[in-house]
This record gives sequence, structure tokens and C-alpha cells, in this order.
Amino acid sequence: MNPGDRVRVDRADQTYEGVLLPSTTTENLVVKLDSGYNVGVDRDAADVEVLESDVYAVEDAQDTDGESEIEFDEDLPTISLISTGGTIASTVDYRTGAVTAQFDAEDVLRAVPDLAGRANYRGRVVANILSENMTPDVWQDLAHAVKEEIEAGADGVVVMHGTDTMQFTASALAFMLDTPVPIVFTGSQRSADRPSSDNVMNAVCAVEAAKDDCAEVLVCMHESESDDVCALHRGTRVRKNHTSRRDAFETVGSEPLGQVDYDAEEVTFNRDHVERGERELALADDLETDVDLVKFTPGTSPALLEAAADGAAGVVIEGTGLGHVNTDWIETIDELTDAGTAVVMTSQCLDGRVCDRVYDTGRDLLDAGVVEGEDMLPGTAKVKLMWALANAEDVAETMQEPLAGEITDRSVPWT
Amino acid sequence: MNPGDRVRVDRADQTYEGVLLPSTTTENLVVKLDSGYNVGVDRDAADVEVLESDVYAVEDAQDTDGESEIEFDEDLPTISLISTGGTIASTVDYRTGAVTAQFDAEDVLRAVPDLAGRANYRGRVVANILSENMTPDVWQDLAHAVKEEIEAGADGVVVMHGTDTMQFTASALAFMLDTPVPIVFTGSQRSADRPSSDNVMNAVCAVEAAKDDCAEVLVCMHESESDDVCALHRGTRVRKNHTSRRDAFETVGSEPLGQVDYDAEEVTFNRDHVERGERELALADDLETDVDLVKFTPGTSPALLEAAADGAAGVVIEGTGLGHVNTDWIETIDELTDAGTAVVMTSQCLDGRVCDRVYDTGRDLLDAGVVEGEDMLPGTAKVKLMWALANAEDVAETMQEPLAGEITDRSVPWT
Repeated sequence: MNPGDRVRVDRADQTYEGVLLPSTTTENLVVKLDSGYNVGVDRDAADVEVLESDVYAVEDAQDTDGESEIEFDEDLPTISLISTGGTIASTVDYRTGAVTAQFDAEDVLRAVPDLAGRANYRGRVVANILSENMTPDVWQDLAHAVKEEIEAGADGVVVMHGTDTMQFTASALAFMLDTPVPIVFTGSQRSADRPSSDNVMNAVCAVEAAKDDCAEVLVCMHESESDDVCALHRGTRVRKNHTSRRDAFETVGSEPLGQVDYDAEEVTFNRDHVERGERELALADDLETDVDLVKFTPGTSPALLEAAADGAAGVVIEGTGLGHVNTDWIETIDELTDAGTAVVMTSQCLDGRVCDRVYDTGRDLLDAGVVEGEDMLPGTAKVKLMWALANAEDVAETMQEPLAGEITDRSVPWT
Repeated sequence: MNPGDRVRVDRADQTYEGVLLPSTTTENLVVKLDSGYNVGVDRDAADVEVLESDVYAVEDAQDTDGESEIEFDEDLPTISLISTGGTIASTVDYRTGAVTAQFDAEDVLRAVPDLAGRANYRGRVVANILSENMTPDVWQDLAHAVKEEIEAGADGVVVMHGTDTMQFTASALAFMLDTPVPIVFTGSQRSADRPSSDNVMNAVCAVEAAKDDCAEVLVCMHESESDDVCALHRGTRVRKNHTSRRDAFETVGSEPLGQVDYDAEEVTFNRDHVERGERELALADDLETDVDLVKFTPGTSPALLEAAADGAAGVVIEGTGLGHVNTDWIETIDELTDAGTAVVMTSQCLDGRVCDRVYDTGRDLLDAGVVEGEDMLPGTAKVKLMWALANAEDVAETMQEPLAGEITDRSVPWT
């Protein structure tokens, strides 16, 4: 009896039939039912019969001998599934009651039977970390892996990622990679053992999006609390706006770029986007990681900014309103820019454009050498500044130029 | 010819009639037209006739002789207008093209003729600063002024405040004051000289709310881009979510507490709230201001937290998702709590509850002594922590207890 086996479980007055999940332990069986729900069963109290062994095998890109238990279907596109960890690649650890990351890409396919028949799959594990532990180093590893997968023939890439910092990693890939195929991030707000888990629908919709015609870095997550539609967000404009809801991800400042209808298997786009094949594959993966993000709030001394930016290559400030800080921060900012530190202003309002030409404070900030971050999300601005410092000739100019949809049109609504 | 005079201005082919505003300079006249729009006119190119002098005078609470040019109407409630500065109390400085704060409360009444006849007014200036320069000191001055105004007989208080940090000041007053009358913050996203200025409607709706039956600290701002309804938000749950839109302010996680219909002059509430007279007036204005807010983003070293929290009484972390940081922050947090620093976890998702019992990272954080900030907004949590450190017996317990609507119900949506 192994993960991937189809089993029948009898215990007391109930019978379950489904696929054994890798989260099975010596004490507990975890079975994915045909309904999509998972169930945990005390092994000692159950009778188990194996009906079919290893029903969902998958080609592993890291197998050099290329042996696959699933036949290649030349009528289907090839999608590369890259796992970095997170809830979508995890299940409950029954020993402790907590959730730990313990899947590789092949396991995810076993756990999501609905992926079968939609594509030929390549599987790859780049990391196995909760996304709060994601670092710029891993962004670079991931970018290399994605490039290699595309070079090896993937028609689209799905990246499974924890939801906490998905928007940062997606932004990093959007700046580092020019891609001829879709790169679709997806994750899960509820682990697979919960009846309300969103992992199946998100993974299926991400694969459908990766087969489609948008050669951008996207985030694919539930659009509402219903199990009907996933939204497709540009990686540079998306934000996790709720700690726990399945529809936590939102495009800031506009509707999502597109949608995937789960049942109809239909992908639609609401706006212009980069099309499949429009760009050549290219990677510029250098990052200057000595960049901080500092949020200004009332009562915060400029010492916090000094500590964050001391000797740093760059700092992003999350200011108030149109891009302001207390006047007592301006001298520190002036000193930083004089010393060659790039200081980029964004707004903790999150939506709307920074404009430091309206009020005295803003004009003093411009005099002190602040670069206006346009309407970039603060987190996206931090990632872009890491990239610009390592790759751009003119950092200030590059920060104000839209590269990957991170800056939207320049219309000013308040006239 | 003085501010407040009703004038007729002839220039070239146009004639304007309205009230002269205090932003008038030696070179420029600024006239509030009867339409509500303001117009600037080159003084040299215009003929001006004074039709009526000082049409909108107002009692000034700081006048010890109590002389008033407006008769007291005993059928109307008395509303105290307190000015702290910001766009609502400012107009364009025509010399520089920028906006500077230069009104006192009496000037605001002159600039907002529509306030006349709705209440007896007391006017008071506590500060004249752009709100990015607001500090805990001024919060305390303001709390004292509000208390004095209520003791002097105000049936409601309207605080005019810059929009950048209005939510922080409103939160501070909500924690410092028990109030038997409404305390309504309002401001303006567009200065009075712009055709689209929101200052008249916001001020009028704030006065209507201050006459009503909700003895809480509220924020009253445009609910949509239309000039029809202002939303009433709890000060502890509101956030400026757009840099420039007139409807920038939103209650996070629910509908606003109420609405004010501008034309109908009707105030309605959507939920239970503290009623007029339900609480005795009380002030607990001590604050421990050595509190910082630090936002965790990928790639940020724990050194930023060390710098923010070194020797501090408390620190609020804006973590990811359910309340996480990179594992390399946990040791620093452990050292901080051992040294007696209160460390409160909130989420940069902004909406939804922190829960550090789901994932390993969160449970390590709880072991390190982190206090879960429930579903408090990070900025509100910072203000509350300043207050709790100075006033609460058990800071951790107080941080998790709703005092002024800052924590909403404890239902967990992800089961």
C-alpha cells in the first residue's frame, strides 16, 4: 500500500473509496475521495484493500532516463509543474495538527486527479518552503528552472507557491524573465484535507491558463468564495488582501486581467496582454538584494529609515497619501540620496498614483532626490528596485517606466 | 475688502459674485461662487465691489469675551469645529502653485457657507499642520481640546484633519476618550479651489453626523465619486485606500457603520453602535510613544526589526498572510520579548484575522512570545499599543480585547 494507490477503506459503519495521499502516516491514512474531499482515517480502526496501484504517475523532468508511467499524448500541450512548497503542496501533519510542506510535483498530481488528461506534464521541485521563507536566492533558482523548462519544450509553466509571498515571487519573475509562454502561479488558502480546500480548482485553472495565449507572469486563484471561476492577475499588480479567504487575491486598481471558468474550462481576457510567442525567451536574473522597504507611520523616527537604508543600495518608502512622510524624514532622505542610495516613494494607500508635486512635503521630497514610484504596489517596487539596481543603466528612469504591467496608465483622476 | 466679504468681481468679459476667501493675496482674489466652486482672479485685471461685509462670522471658543456676530439659536444643537490643518482647511497658495494650510475654524465656516443654519458653532484651532506631520503629542492636545469642548456644552465635535493620517488620529482619540457625543473626523481629498473639491459636502455631512446619535469616533468622507452620500466609518476600522480619489476611505472587512445623505440631510446606521449619552466623558491620554511598526517583506533581514525595536517598549509587525515572518526573524523576536518588549503581530493582508496556530512558523512565533493582533489594522494596532503600554494592566490581554470596534467578531471563515 503506497501513496497513489486506489483503495477501499472500511471502518465501523462507513466505507471510503479513493486515492491514498502522501500525507499518510503510520498511524493515519489520508484518502482523496472521488468527490474531491480528503478524509483522514485511524489506521488501526480500518480495513484497507488496494484496488489499483499508483493510478497517477507522472513524468519527472529530473529523471534523466526519461521513464514515464503516463504515455505522452502528442495532441496535448506540455505543461511544466514546478513546486516551491506552500499549502498547495502540503497537507495536514496529523502528528502535530499543523501543516507542513511535504509534496513534490508528482505528489501534487497524485493529489489532484483532475489534472489528468489536460496536458502532458513535467514535474520539478525547486524548493519546499513555506512562502514566508522565500528569498531572492530562490527567486533566482526558480527563474532558472522556468527558463530550462521552457527550453526543454514546456508550452506553459505552473508554479505552485505558498500564498503569503506569491505576489513578490511572481513580480520577481516578471522582471527577470521575458517569456514566450504563460507562467502561472497558483496556491491554496486551505490545505487539501479541508472540505473547503481550494487546491484542486486553483491547480486545474492554472493548467488551463498555462495552455492559453497570455505570455505573462500570472497569478491564478479563486475569484470569489464559489468554486466556479479563478481570476488571472498580473503578477506585478496582485495582492493578497485577506488572511484566510479563498478569494484573498485581488488585482489592485482594476479588474483582473482575465478569468478561468472551472467547469467550462474556458480562459477569457479582459484587456490587452502579451501574446504567446510575442517575446523571445530571455533571462536577466541579477538582483541587488540590499534593498529594504520601510513603512512610515505617525510617530516613527527617521532613525528607522537610517537603520534600513544605512549603506544600502536602495530603499522603498511606503509613505502616506500621495507619497508623504513627516518633514523630519526629509533630511535623512537627502543624505541617503547624496550617498548614492536610491530612494523610491510609494503609498500605503496601495491604490492610486504617487504624486509629490501637489503639496509642500512632496516637493521637498523631490528636492531631496526621491524617485516617485508611480502607482506601483510597494512590494512590487521593492522587487523592481532590486532588479533595476542590478540591470538598469538609469535606475530612476527604469523605476518610472512600465516593464511588466506594474505601472498602469498615467491618467490623473483628481483634476 | 476682507475675507468673508461678499463681492462682485468684473473682469474683461466675465462677472463673478461670491464670498472672498482667506487665500486671497495681494496679487490674487479667490472667490467662492454660489455654485460652490472657487475662482481665482488676477487683482490688477479686475474691478471689485463689496456687496456685504463679513457675511459668515462665527463664535470663537478662544475668544474669552464671548462676542459673537452670529446669534445663538436655542433650537439648534451646538457643534464644535476643531481644525488641525490639512486640505480641508487649506487652499491653493497662488504664489507657489502648491497647497498650504492656512485656515482657522472660522475661516472654514466662511469657506463653507452651507454649514450656516445647521447648528450653533464653536470654532477652535488645535494645530495647523499637514497630516503627515501629525504626532502623538498633537493627538493628546486634540483629545484635551475635544474633552474641553464637550465639557463646554458641545453636542458633537467635528475634527477637520488632513487625510493622510486621519485614520491614526481617529484611532488615537477612540482609545483615549470615552465620549457621550459624536466625534466626527472629516477632511478633503481635493482643495477648495478645485471644481471637484469634496470639502463642502464632507464638512456638511460631518456636522449632520455630529448632531446624530452615535457617540463614537467616526470618519466622514465621500462614499462614492458622486456628491450624494458620505460614509461614516469607525475610526479604528477605516483606511485611506487610494492616493487621490474622493472616495478613498473604506471600512476594512465590512460595510461602513453608517451613511449621511447629503441632500436629504439624513443619517442612517447599518449596525449597532454606542449611543449618545451611553458613556460618561472620560480621558486616558497617556501614551508610550516608543513603539514602532515594521513591515516584513521577502529579503528583509531581522536587523530592521532589531533597529526598530531596540530598547523600545513595543513593536507591531506587519507580517504576511495569517501573521508570518521569515524564520530568521524568530530568534530576534524571542530576544525582544525576553527583554520585555511587547511584540504584536498583524497582517499586511489588512483584511482578515491573524492566526498563528495553523502553520509551524506561526506556532514558533507564539512560542517566541508574539501577541496575535486579531483582525486589527496594523496602523490601529500601533496606536493601540502606544495606549495599552501606558494604560493597561495586562498589555497582551488588552491588545486582544475589543475596546473601540478595532477588533471585530471572532468567527473564523476557513473551517
